[in-house]
Amino acid sequence: MNEYMRIAIEEAEEGVLHDHGGPFGAVIVHNGKVIARGHNRVITTNDPTAHAEMEVIREAARKLGRFDLSDCEIYSSCEPCPMCFSAIHWAKMKNLYFGCSREDAADIGFDDNFIYDMIRGTAEKEQVHTEQIERENCLKPFKQWESKSDKVPY
Amino acid sequence: MNEYMRIAIEEAEEGVLHDHGGPFGAVIVHNGKVIARGHNRVITTNDPTAHAEMEVIREAARKLGRFDLSDCEIYSSCEPCPMCFSAIHWAKMKNLYFGCSREDAADIGFDDNFIYDMIRGTAEKEQVHTEQIERENCLKPFKQWESKSDKVPY
Repeated sequence: MNEYMRIAIEEAEEGVLHDHGGPFGAVIVHNGKVIARGHNRVITTNDPTAHAEMEVIREAARKLGRFDLSDCEIYSSCEPCPMCFSAIHWAKMKNLYFGCSREDAADIGFDDNFIYDMIRGTAEKEQVHTEQIERENCLKPFKQWESKSDKVPY
Repeated sequence: MNEYMRIAIEEAEEGVLHDHGGPFGAVIVHNGKVIARGHNRVITTNDPTAHAEMEVIREAARKLGRFDLSDCEIYSSCEPCPMCFSAIHWAKMKNLYFGCSREDAADIGFDDNFIYDMIRGTAEKEQVHTEQIERENCLKPFKQWESKSDKVPY
């Protein structure tokens, strides 16, 4: 078995055992070494964003002291939800390996298809009512950013 | 001007002023009161997930002591990226108000269209190579979860 995925599975099992959250684990590898391992902690932290992938991205970024993880790869015991999939892109990672599929996750009650459908524009029903307001006023900090001479682009 | 959005804008401006991150602010409102206000902190925390909306979701969840924010609404000075948009769904919020559009954000260098394209399956080029491995082994923690009698569904 793939050694990194073995650790991700171990993490998932730990999380279930200790009631931390859903059965999901993840690992980030840098130069062949595991620099972050973690699992879903939504229940124990009351943080709806505490998915396994988010946990390890934050930990790896903390350890390396940078938000650019382009020299890292991520192993997740399940196909990432759109939140985590996007975070992997923001972290600029180049490789993602996952185990179970989103259909496997839906089968045990973790269905993220409604979010995929919303993003794709194929949802029949909106969960979140979305409305644009105050655009002109909101453009002000954008102009402040643009005119900032010492900004850090990212 | 909408009072909640005024605070989100103030947050965005604070973030730019103190070099915390991009020009984005957000606010979460519960029973008419602001319970979380924050801004992008990607640069200062080195956390690629520290977008304004993520910051306020985590703070509101911490304050309320629950991951279900269905009685809260979120105001963001810019249209959320797919990561934050998904997080808003996981937090079960019912209302999202945003100011600038994703096109406005792209105009100042914050382009998330490549992620939308990936999720929609319309991307011409993959940033992240994605591969499924070890599915059978990864199903084990799922079975552990399913057979757990005292699990907290969420």
